[in-house]
Amino acid sequence: MADVPFDVGLLDPTGPAAATIVGDDAYVRAMVDAEEALLGALATAGAAPSGPSGLGDIELDVPAIAAAGRAGGNPVIPLLAALKAGATGEVQAVLHQGATSQDILDTAAMLVAARARTAIGSALGPVLDGLATLAEETRHTPVAGRTLGQQAAPTTFGLRVAVLLDGITRAWRALEAVELPAQLAGSVGTLAVLADALGEDAAAQVRREYAERLGLADRPVPWHVERSTVASLGAALAVLLGALGRLGLEIAQGARTELGELDLELAEGEGGSSAMPQKQNPVAAVLLVGAARRAPGLASTLLGAELALDDRPSGDWHAEWQPLRELLRLALESADLAAAAVAALAVRDDRMRENLDLSGGAIHAERAQWALVPFVGRARAAELVRTALHGDDFVGALATAVGAEPDAGPDAVERLRAVTGTGGPVGLSDRMIDAAVAASRRSA
Amino acid sequence: MADVPFDVGLLDPTGPAAATIVGDDAYVRAMVDAEEALLGALATAGAAPSGPSGLGDIELDVPAIAAAGRAGGNPVIPLLAALKAGATGEVQAVLHQGATSQDILDTAAMLVAARARTAIGSALGPVLDGLATLAEETRHTPVAGRTLGQQAAPTTFGLRVAVLLDGITRAWRALEAVELPAQLAGSVGTLAVLADALGEDAAAQVRREYAERLGLADRPVPWHVERSTVASLGAALAVLLGALGRLGLEIAQGARTELGELDLELAEGEGGSSAMPQKQNPVAAVLLVGAARRAPGLASTLLGAELALDDRPSGDWHAEWQPLRELLRLALESADLAAAAVAALAVRDDRMRENLDLSGGAIHAERAQWALVPFVGRARAAELVRTALHGDDFVGALATAVGAEPDAGPDAVERLRAVTGTGGPVGLSDRMIDAAVAASRRSA
Amino acid sequence: MADVPFDVGLLDPTGPAAATIVGDDAYVRAMVDAEEALLGALATAGAAPSGPSGLGDIELDVPAIAAAGRAGGNPVIPLLAALKAGATGEVQAVLHQGATSQDILDTAAMLVAARARTAIGSALGPVLDGLATLAEETRHTPVAGRTLGQQAAPTTFGLRVAVLLDGITRAWRALEAVELPAQLAGSVGTLAVLADALGEDAAAQVRREYAERLGLADRPVPWHVERSTVASLGAALAVLLGALGRLGLEIAQGARTELGELDLELAEGEGGSSAMPQKQNPVAAVLLVGAARRAPGLASTLLGAELALDDRPSGDWHAEWQPLRELLRLALESADLAAAAVAALAVRDDRMRENLDLSGGAIHAERAQWALVPFVGRARAAELVRTALHGDDFVGALATAVGAEPDAGPDAVERLRAVTGTGGPVGLSDRMIDAAVAASRRSA
Amino acid sequence: MADVPFDVGLLDPTGPAAATIVGDDAYVRAMVDAEEALLGALATAGAAPSGPSGLGDIELDVPAIAAAGRAGGNPVIPLLAALKAGATGEVQAVLHQGATSQDILDTAAMLVAARARTAIGSALGPVLDGLATLAEETRHTPVAGRTLGQQAAPTTFGLRVAVLLDGITRAWRALEAVELPAQLAGSVGTLAVLADALGEDAAAQVRREYAERLGLADRPVPWHVERSTVASLGAALAVLLGALGRLGLEIAQGARTELGELDLELAEGEGGSSAMPQKQNPVAAVLLVGAARRAPGLASTLLGAELALDDRPSGDWHAEWQPLRELLRLALESADLAAAAVAALAVRDDRMRENLDLSGGAIHAERAQWALVPFVGRARAAELVRTALHGDDFVGALATAVGAEPDAGPDAVERLRAVTGTGGPVGLSDRMIDAAVAASRRSA
Repeated sequence: MADVPFDVGLLDPTGPAAATIVGDDAYVRAMVDAEEALLGALATAGAAPSGPSGLGDIELDVPAIAAAGRAGGNPVIPLLAALKAGATGEVQAVLHQGATSQDILDTAAMLVAARARTAIGSALGPVLDGLATLAEETRHTPVAGRTLGQQAAPTTFGLRVAVLLDGITRAWRALEAVELPAQLAGSVGTLAVLADALGEDAAAQVRREYAERLGLADRPVPWHVERSTVASLGAALAVLLGALGRLGLEIAQGARTELGELDLELAEGEGGSSAMPQKQNPVAAVLLVGAARRAPGLASTLLGAELALDDRPSGDWHAEWQPLRELLRLALESADLAAAAVAALAVRDDRMRENLDLSGGAIHAERAQWALVPFVGRARAAELVRTALHGDDFVGALATAVGAEPDAGPDAVERLRAVTGTGGPVGLSDRMIDAAVAASRRSA
Repeated sequence: MADVPFDVGLLDPTGPAAATIVGDDAYVRAMVDAEEALLGALATAGAAPSGPSGLGDIELDVPAIAAAGRAGGNPVIPLLAALKAGATGEVQAVLHQGATSQDILDTAAMLVAARARTAIGSALGPVLDGLATLAEETRHTPVAGRTLGQQAAPTTFGLRVAVLLDGITRAWRALEAVELPAQLAGSVGTLAVLADALGEDAAAQVRREYAERLGLADRPVPWHVERSTVASLGAALAVLLGALGRLGLEIAQGARTELGELDLELAEGEGGSSAMPQKQNPVAAVLLVGAARRAPGLASTLLGAELALDDRPSGDWHAEWQPLRELLRLALESADLAAAAVAALAVRDDRMRENLDLSGGAIHAERAQWALVPFVGRARAAELVRTALHGDDFVGALATAVGAEPDAGPDAVERLRAVTGTGGPVGLSDRMIDAAVAASRRSA
Repeated sequence: MADVPFDVGLLDPTGPAAATIVGDDAYVRAMVDAEEALLGALATAGAAPSGPSGLGDIELDVPAIAAAGRAGGNPVIPLLAALKAGATGEVQAVLHQGATSQDILDTAAMLVAARARTAIGSALGPVLDGLATLAEETRHTPVAGRTLGQQAAPTTFGLRVAVLLDGITRAWRALEAVELPAQLAGSVGTLAVLADALGEDAAAQVRREYAERLGLADRPVPWHVERSTVASLGAALAVLLGALGRLGLEIAQGARTELGELDLELAEGEGGSSAMPQKQNPVAAVLLVGAARRAPGLASTLLGAELALDDRPSGDWHAEWQPLRELLRLALESADLAAAAVAALAVRDDRMRENLDLSGGAIHAERAQWALVPFVGRARAAELVRTALHGDDFVGALATAVGAEPDAGPDAVERLRAVTGTGGPVGLSDRMIDAAVAASRRSA
Repeated sequence: MADVPFDVGLLDPTGPAAATIVGDDAYVRAMVDAEEALLGALATAGAAPSGPSGLGDIELDVPAIAAAGRAGGNPVIPLLAALKAGATGEVQAVLHQGATSQDILDTAAMLVAARARTAIGSALGPVLDGLATLAEETRHTPVAGRTLGQQAAPTTFGLRVAVLLDGITRAWRALEAVELPAQLAGSVGTLAVLADALGEDAAAQVRREYAERLGLADRPVPWHVERSTVASLGAALAVLLGALGRLGLEIAQGARTELGELDLELAEGEGGSSAMPQKQNPVAAVLLVGAARRAPGLASTLLGAELALDDRPSGDWHAEWQPLRELLRLALESADLAAAAVAALAVRDDRMRENLDLSGGAIHAERAQWALVPFVGRARAAELVRTALHGDDFVGALATAVGAEPDAGPDAVERLRAVTGTGGPVGLSDRMIDAAVAASRRSA
């Protein structure tokens, strides 16, 4: 029974810290907050006692509420019974007036989402800052650019970081822009019970006041079955988890023994193995990837739940609860993991340079070829490059060949040396880094 | 081989009309447009011939390009070969300069998306208009509000329509807000080849000009591996498909023989059955549901593709192409289907009223009970309602019982009659309808 | 922190009962069972003390293990520390020998899955029995067959039940057939540590013995990164949840006020509403649908986790844990809900008959038309039917018209009456029911 | 319009070759085969002309059928019209008798699936053979075992290949085991029209004969709304795509410039880049990954389609068509890609050995430590290893230290040398390879 908690975080490798923000207790607290806000709004309309409701002080047995929620299909019914049992007579008389259980649970979910979002934003602050600083510090650190897993052309590590930064910035900004509304519309969405009791104007005012007290948006049209908000919120969380997961993927790849370009400098006792004494695993990076891999499936359930029927949904609504909460949990924890990973990230520029040299200069072929075009034309440039690629010292061989070209000469060789040197900006990398850093600062 | 087209729309029950906008030919055309815009932008910088490129006139064998694309993993390589073969020498010399195949294909995908979005918007215009008009016309049409499939409390059909309208309005507005960028950053995202050739300022200017010529947003940071844009676009399309699918679901349910509240008045030859002579199927509604059921899985693939590695992705990018295109196709066709469904929708208010009477008045229990609270208190009101629910005429029995209550009397009976009558607004339904209609008009 | 359990079942509307079978405590117990089985197997090979290990008696602080698991990315590392701290010196010396943490967690997951499957099977027994009995009892109960939501042709309710039964039978049989293996292969899958210590033969024998003690299959090839088993298990659970969800969907639809063909006869206090006194919601049916809607997204994550790299996966493995557990939880609870729903299901054959009569006999058109073909030919039959469909009494009008046909006469009318009567089997319905019932009995 | 084919393979990077097996034409052909098999089965019962039907010779305009299919929601209705128009009078009279359009389309889908499966099996033959041979050839090729991306302990490349082989073997065997049934049950699943015309025995016999002529399984219970078969088929295809995608992922990773352990030896013109002259991309590997990333989303739609209502589904069925077909297409092409990749795969054992030496012997720490336990105990062994890990020559330093241990001596040093040598089997690797190869040969 409910004596054994289902989930204390054992299989949530991202960690149990999210429990206080999005765990069952947090949902119950948010439901009580919603009922309390309704009482407060009713009081403003003269329809409820104006003093403190005392709801927040009632002791609640969350596992018992969870267990009892099954019979009616949602936990609001037993929660209301518990609140009524603990409330004063005056409060009992008006508690939940005009509301339906979905009003309370939808509002609580948005309240939990709002609180989680604030916490995510706080955790992301140092991620954005840290990546911006890193992009600037490494803006001229040469590294092999890779496509389809192969070395392709040189780039700078700072630019690679800037692209990661830009993704997280965009994803966070999009999440921040999702409007989180309160819900108060009664059993079939008309708010008729409140309108009957107070008149249309006052009923509408109660709904606005309720939203405002909770810090949520007021929606004049009920969204009991109009679930685009939940679907969009889920998608925005998944997009953020993807952007953070990509950070983990890049770190895990860069930290592979054979690349050795990145490292997480772990605290004592972190990243160890149950079997191998020499190992230091980039655990935070791995867990970021794991969290991100779960997001699309969870988001797909929320997208599917839009297909709700009637004036309140049947089953589709129930299918939303855990996936939304799980996405919030994963985003919270991934923001923390990303902050830890960025703080621990060590850049091995010596290994970057060694790897850049692995191809004997062939990595410079594209820029070298285009640089020669003005001197020898497109076809001849391609031919010269093709030939020089056969040896072990591409740039040297090409320089020699170019020096021997009748139409080329020293200018061409100088140009060749310029585009195959490393150490400064590459192409527009400085501007790109500046743009990503500036965007991140606007949204931090 | 490529002689047999894979898909001419046979298994796309939403119809083959989307082919011209998002079919393979449309993608090839958009890729040519991207190459042409790049030539034009280069010309502005004095780095390409300034006259017409003639690219658009080159005959292209799309199936052959498709077949040849396999060797290199994308269709840009054979397309370029075909364009080069058909271009003038001057164009050949600079075609594709600075670009990588992903620049062209990403840009083409956004161009196709932009064109599809415009067409979706056009098709949605009459959907929003039609639903707004319908909501207003039926704002006082009484209908049984239903929750968990059961009759719950009265509402108006206009409000139900307004909630559908609000969902489509929101989803469309969110889709419209997705920024569709061009991509031009070269092999590893530095735009180095162009910067080498033209200098940083001119290279940046070429990128801006390229985007502008295509009517796409300019992005100063490359998004080769930063795929939040594609993921967000996919999610927005899925959210729209969900909102349209819900319209289909409501129509299909309302049109069930036993409910009979809605009907699609079909043209001759539509909705027939291969077996049953008497049937008229609400085909457009059914197909809207079918399309919506496919969207979450497709969107989940795009969300997952954010986990791209290196400076250009490997496999994850390739996984995006068809799901994004399929979502555009489904959205295009669903917008058309929704327009057809709204145009053909017939409302059977007589059947709505008959169904409303099925419960012998019990559907009024919630509002009746709350209406009595001021007269007899919450506990006694519940008791009176519970007793009256045993008979066949809930309102009559309750009125009699209330008339006999010492604390109640004629005022209470009058109040009871008021909240159990039907025909006007219900609760805040008029305001809700007005709000949804006004929002839809702002975004149409 | 870990003081607040994350999930005690509040947002799991299917109920908290699954905690004891698949909750965090159950996983910890299964991990201890795995370590104990390894000790036992080592003992058989003379490599560990042969008496009881005492592991099962060590007090474990599950929330603390959960919290500590984060540093290393999995809970086995802190669990091992706790077990070592509580074990005798002899046990300490060999505990976990040759194993890696993934061996223990994979084995524990399969052990939990095996235990959950047994419980699911027990819960499904009465579901299969109940549906088989119901199919037989209602084999001649006429009901309107419906396609695309429209009445189409008559069928029997027993056949509809038989099709539901067949789906659950097939899904259960497929789940039962999934082989659940133990995992024991060491850090990179070679089992080298054990082979070093005991020799190849003995090491292989320890692996077999380990699996046997746990009641799991022995796999000679490690599956650390070969995750088709987990993916297939997830898919089989999702298929079962789909079959059970369809049962819920049919009940929820049949119980709609306007159809009234089905009902869940609920116990006192079940199915009530927080707002509407008259409502009795088919909660179990609704929750079955809700659970089923979550399954595809969860299964898709497990399918995606097959793309694991290296000799043990990085992130992809971590992404499996919660979705697999959640699918087991949903299947457990849905089996219980299905049993409750089948036990409470009431069939309203009077409403079925009333609904069957709604079309004025038009529902018989297809069979009537084909029955006339031998008498008047295909074209004339279609014409006669089309004409008769215009009135209110299709069968009567058609019989009159057929009686007047020169080529038809009394035989044709008699035939018409035969194929439009109701009350016995319809087509092959009796054989179909027999087949479904027989198949279910073989697998119960 | 339908003049432009929607998809000729441009965005299907796995290639257009699948069109002939699972393209629109193939579906139309399979639908005609189904109608022809029904005529044949009816003929056996004396209810249709016994000669050749001629259906196969009727010219069909597939794009026109596709376009016309929209009105009725499926392509069978216009296909039937076209077949009727081209058939003899005798055939016209009985064509499609007893069937509904879903019978024909479901049967056609299974027929296409059966044909595709045969082709997949043929393509997988050389994959299984090639991997088995490779596993045997490289059974003693030492390579660094890696976990969480880090070098962990030595293994053999042959074992890594064997694990890949085992995954593909299992996935193929599971796909092969999916029963592919015919569907013939008429408008609402009762087969009443046929039973009316021929009697129950003969109608059942027609159904069996129909299935047999098509080489599909006969199902005594209709599966119009019992979609576990389609869901399971989709999941089995996704599992196979995952196993093949993992092959691609391993190759792409091993082929990274910095690892260099694997290579695809490409034909002239394959794997080139539109920008970089020196590049040779492992395209087949990349495309295998891309295909696999799409499978989970597609499979999730099929799993979700199980939630079908009534006696034939509404929308959910329509949602199945493209995802099932797309999974077949991807599996067909991935089997081909895998065959090409295996044929082109080059193993660089020199690079494997170089990489194995990167850690200065630390990769041997786990086995070394356990090997010392019998000599010096678990705690001392750990201490010795920890100290030796500080230097550059782990094995040398450890050997020296062990030699100096009072309780250890030459036996311990010899043992240490034995477990840190490379070149033969590692642990049970030989047995594991043998097991995987044997299993693959049983299923090839």
